[in-house]
Amino acid sequence: MCEAKVYLKDDPTGRPVMEEVILLQPEGEEYLLVSLLGEQKRVRGRIEKIDFLRHTVYLTTDDRP
Amino acid sequence: MCEAKVYLKDDPTGRPVMEEVILLQPEGEEYLLVSLLGEQKRVRGRIEKIDFLRHTVYLTTDDRP
Repeated sequence: MCEAKVYLKDDPTGRPVMEEVILLQPEGEEYLLVSLLGEQKRVRGRIEKIDFLRHTVYLTTDDRP
Repeated sequence: MCEAKVYLKDDPTGRPVMEEVILLQPEGEEYLLVSLLGEQKRVRGRIEKIDFLRHTVYLTTDDRP
């Protein structure tokens, strides 16, 4: 299976914001994340990188001009 | 393997812009796509949806305000 882990690049814990993400969809200035179990989360940030081999998405919250 | 297909939502052919995409990374107003074979493409657009179960990324070129 190809569910992804979503990380916030600026999160000092280094832990993913969400695991087993099956859907990622922008909603305004946020991204809606939906997990395999149906859990939903909204995260502010911009996509910085999506690595399909490692199943990881990196979001950055750096929205300073 | 979890390589993705990248589609342009507004492309009438319905064919993916690129298959076997392993990396997607924004570069200015474009996205850099890199395939498993090392091919690179730059595509203008915004991410509209990433479906990790279907391994598909939908970009929209609709950048009207």
